Amino acid sequence: MGKNVEKLKAYLGRPNDLLYAAAVLNWDQEVYMPLEGVEARSEQLATLNSLAHQMLTSDELKGLLEAAEEEVKDTAYDSDEASLVRITRRGFDQRTKIPTEFVEEESRVSTQAFVAWREARKNKSYAGYQPHLEKVIDLNIRRADYLGYEEHPYDALLDLFEPGMKTTQVEALFSDLKTGLKPLVREIADKDSIDDTFFSKDAYNTERQWDFTMLLLRDIGYDFNRGRQDKAPHPFTINFSTKDVRVTTRLLPHRPQSAVFSTIHEGGHALYELGIPEKFERTPLAQGASLGMHESQSRLWENQVARSKAFWKYYYPIFRAFYPEQLADIDLDHFYRAINKVQPDFIRVEADEVTYNMHIFVRFELEKDLLTGVLAVKDVPEAWNTKYQEYLGIIPPDDGVGCLQDVHWSHGTLGYFPTYTIGNIISAQLYAQARQDIPDVEDLFAQGEFAPLLTWLRKRVHSHGAKFTSAELVERELGQKIQAQPLLDYMREKYTEIYDL
Amino acid sequence: MGKNVEKLKAYLGRPNDLLYAAAVLNWDQEVYMPLEGVEARSEQLATLNSLAHQMLTSDELKGLLEAAEEEVKDTAYDSDEASLVRITRRGFDQRTKIPTEFVEEESRVSTQAFVAWREARKNKSYAGYQPHLEKVIDLNIRRADYLGYEEHPYDALLDLFEPGMKTTQVEALFSDLKTGLKPLVREIADKDSIDDTFFSKDAYNTERQWDFTMLLLRDIGYDFNRGRQDKAPHPFTINFSTKDVRVTTRLLPHRPQSAVFSTIHEGGHALYELGIPEKFERTPLAQGASLGMHESQSRLWENQVARSKAFWKYYYPIFRAFYPEQLADIDLDHFYRAINKVQPDFIRVEADEVTYNMHIFVRFELEKDLLTGVLAVKDVPEAWNTKYQEYLGIIPPDDGVGCLQDVHWSHGTLGYFPTYTIGNIISAQLYAQARQDIPDVEDLFAQGEFAPLLTWLRKRVHSHGAKFTSAELVERELGQKIQAQPLLDYMREKYTEIYDL
Repeated sequence: MGKNVEKLKAYLGRPNDLLYAAAVLNWDQEVYMPLEGVEARSEQLATLNSLAHQMLTSDELKGLLEAAEEEVKDTAYDSDEASLVRITRRGFDQRTKIPTEFVEEESRVSTQAFVAWREARKNKSYAGYQPHLEKVIDLNIRRADYLGYEEHPYDALLDLFEPGMKTTQVEALFSDLKTGLKPLVREIADKDSIDDTFFSKDAYNTERQWDFTMLLLRDIGYDFNRGRQDKAPHPFTINFSTKDVRVTTRLLPHRPQSAVFSTIHEGGHALYELGIPEKFERTPLAQGASLGMHESQSRLWENQVARSKAFWKYYYPIFRAFYPEQLADIDLDHFYRAINKVQPDFIRVEADEVTYNMHIFVRFELEKDLLTGVLAVKDVPEAWNTKYQEYLGIIPPDDGVGCLQDVHWSHGTLGYFPTYTIGNIISAQLYAQARQDIPDVEDLFAQGEFAPLLTWLRKRVHSHGAKFTSAELVERELGQKIQAQPLLDYMREKYTEIYDL
Repeated sequence: MGKNVEKLKAYLGRPNDLLYAAAVLNWDQEVYMPLEGVEARSEQLATLNSLAHQMLTSDELKGLLEAAEEEVKDTAYDSDEASLVRITRRGFDQRTKIPTEFVEEESRVSTQAFVAWREARKNKSYAGYQPHLEKVIDLNIRRADYLGYEEHPYDALLDLFEPGMKTTQVEALFSDLKTGLKPLVREIADKDSIDDTFFSKDAYNTERQWDFTMLLLRDIGYDFNRGRQDKAPHPFTINFSTKDVRVTTRLLPHRPQSAVFSTIHEGGHALYELGIPEKFERTPLAQGASLGMHESQSRLWENQVARSKAFWKYYYPIFRAFYPEQLADIDLDHFYRAINKVQPDFIRVEADEVTYNMHIFVRFELEKDLLTGVLAVKDVPEAWNTKYQEYLGIIPPDDGVGCLQDVHWSHGTLGYFPTYTIGNIISAQLYAQARQDIPDVEDLFAQGEFAPLLTWLRKRVHSHGAKFTSAELVERELGQKIQAQPLLDYMREKYTEIYDL
C-alpha cells in the first residue's frame, strides 16, 4: 500500500470509530435503553455524528484524498488501494455537496415528520401528516439538486443507496418483473387458497420461538463469538466492526413464522457483514456494496433457503417437536405450502415473496411522481389506493394500512424502496449460479448443512466489501447484467409446484 | 447565568457526550458484547476518550474558563455558576498537568500489567507481576510529581478520587477508627461463631434471586424508566445521563446474599446519580462529590438499611417465601445474625462490615510506603501478610488470596482504596443525622418504606452534584468534620446486640 493511501486509511479510522460508537448507542436505544434515556441519547448521537461528519468533510481529508488519488492513478480499478480511494471519494463528494444548514433543517423536519406520522398512522388520518410530507418532498427535491444528476432527479437519491444505479435501469428491471409477475399472480388467484390458520389459531410459546431462532442462526453459520441476538419491536441488523455484528428478532405468540423468517433475514444481513475481510476494518470498504446487495443476502437466506422444501425437510420435525399440539395435524407438505401462501394484502412487510414486489412498484412510482411534481402530496392517498387496486387488486380500507404504513418518508428518506426489489432480483441471480456451482446445495439444506453455500457467498460477494457497485459485482462474479429473469424463473418453478399451476 | 459561564457550559456539552458515549460502550462491553468484539471496541474507546481529552485540555477551554472565572469572581462560592467554573478548573488543571506521552505510557503499562496480574493471580505467583507493579509504582511517583503536592506525594493521588482530602487527614481518621475497632473485633472473636452454613449448603434458584433483587430495587426507589439492571461478573453502576443510570448484579447459587447486597449497594450508587439535578446535565457537576461520598451512599443502603433488623422484618418473610425449603429452619433472628456475621477473612470484597475497614488500612499503608520508597515492590507479599496478621490475625495461604486479590494496582491506580473506608465513615455520619431527622426511619424500613430516607438523601447529598468536596458537604449539611466516631457508635450498638457483648 502506497504511503499516501496508508495515510488516508489511518485518517479514516477515527471518524469510523465515531460512527461505530453511534451504532452501539443506536442499538442500545432500540434494545435496552430505559424510556427516559432518550433525550440525553439524542444529544450524544448528535455529537458523535456531527464530529464524524466534520472529519469526513474536512480540508485535511480533501488533501489526503487528492494525494492518494494521484498515487493510485495507475493502480488497478479492483485493487484494495484504488477501491478505498474511490469509495472514500464517493462519500466525501456526497457529504460535501450538502450544506450543513440543509442537514440541520432535514434533521428538524424529519424529527417533526416522524412524530406527525406516528400520530397520523395511529389515527388513520393523513391530513395531519400531509404538511410534513410536503416538507420532506421539498427537501428531497433540493437534495437532488445539491447532489446533481444527469437524467432524472430520482437518480441522485437512488445513488445514495444503490451507487451507480439509474432510474431508467430500475424502470426497465421493474417493467420486466411486472410483465412476468402479472400472469403468475393471476394464475395463483384462480387456485384454491392455502390454509394457514394453524399459525394464528393457537399461541406458540415465545421462549421456544426464541430457542428455535437461536438454533437456526447457529446452523446457518452465524458465529455467536462475533454477534448476538436480542429482541426488538422492529428486527434489524447492526455492526460495530466485522467481528461484532448483531441481529434482533420479534416474538409474536400468534405468528411464529414471523420470528423464524425475521431471524433468518437478519441473519443473512449479518453473515454479509461478518464475511467482510478484516483488512477493511475502520474504512468505508467495511460494509456491503449497496442496500440492494445487502437485501440480496437477507432475501436469499430468507426465501431461497428458508422457504424451500429442502430446508423444512430438516427443520420441520424439529419445529414440530417444539409445538407438538399446535402442529399435530399439519404435515410437512401442508406446512411448506402455508409458509409460501400467496395472498395480496395491504401491508408490505407481511407480504409473500410473489406479491412483495408489487408493494415496491407502487412506492417507486409514487416517489418519482412526487419528486417531479407530477403528483401533489395532497393526492397521495388517492394515488396510493389506485395503484393498490391496479397492482394487487385490493383497496386499503384506511390510510393507516395504506399510504401511512411505512416509516421511511417520515425519516426524510426517498429513493430507498427500490433497493428491496433490486435485492430480490439479485438474490435469484446469485442463487441460480450457486445451484450450478454446488449441484447438491438443496440436498445439503435437507441435512441442515449450509457451509458450502456460505463459503460460496463469502467468496463471490462478502469478500469484496464495498469495493464494487452492485452492477459491477454481478457483472464480475456472474458475468451478467442485473436482470429480472432468474427471479421470475425461480418463482415460476416454485409456485407451479406449490399451486399446481 | 452570566454570558461567559453560559459559553463555558455550552462548550462542555460535547466532551461530556463523548464520555457518556464511552460509558455506553463500556457498559456494553461488560454486559453484552460478544467475545471477539473486544479489539474494535478498544479502538472505539480510545478514539472517544482521546477526543474528549483533547476538548477538555484545549486552549479554547482555557480561554472560556478564564473569562468565566473573571465573571464569577464575586459570585457566591456555593452558587451553581461559581461551582461549575471551579470544578471545571479542577479537572482542566489535573488533565493539563499530565503530559500526553505520560498518558500513553500509562495506557501501555496498565494494559500489560493487567494481563500479567490476571495470570499471576491465576497461578498464585507474585514473581511475574512484580516487574509490572514496579512500573505502575514508578508511574504513580511521576504522576504525583506532575500533579504537585505540598506535604505528601500520596496527597496528589488521593486528590484525584477524594478532592481536597489530605493524607494526614486520612491517617488521623483511620487511626481513630482502628483504635475503636480493635477492641470490638477482639470482643466479637471471644463469642461463639454465628452459623451461616444454610447459605452455602443448598442451591438458591438464580431466577428467584433475580426477581428478589428487582423487587428490592423497585422498593428503595430506583426508577426503571431511568435505569435497568443486568447481570455482570463484577457488579457495577454506570450512568449515561441523570436519566439513564444502570446497575448490574451477580447471581451465585450458593451465595444468594451476594446478589441481594450487591444489588442494594449498586442501587445506592444509582440513587445518588439519579438524584443529581437535571440542570447539571452534560457538565462536570453531573456526578457525585467524590468516590468516598459515592461509597457513603452505596454503603448506607447496603449496611445501615439492608443489613438492619428492621429491613428484614419486612423482607425476610418474602425472601423465605422464595426459598421455603432452604430457609425452613431459619427464623428472622438467625437470618439477621447470619448476614451480619463478623469473621476475619482474606478477601476484601467479601468482608463483613466490621473487618472490611481492616482490609483498607492494609492497602492504604502499603500504598504510602510504596510511593515513598519505604517499601520495595519485591517485598509486597511479605509486608501484606505481616499486616494481615497484625490487623486481622490471619495470614493468607497464598498471594492469590493475598496481595494479588485486587485489580486496582494493575489498572495503574493508587490512592483509590481509602475512599472505601471514607465512604463507610460518612455513611454513618449521614445515617446518624437521618435518624434524628426521621425518628421513625427504621419503623418505616419494617414496612418496606424508604421514600422519606431517599428524600432526605436527595436534599442533603444528591441535589448538590459535584459542587462540593466531601468535607465541604459534610460540614455544610451536618455541621461536622468527617469523623470516625459515628461509625464506631453504630457498630458498637449493632454488634453489642448481635453478639451479646
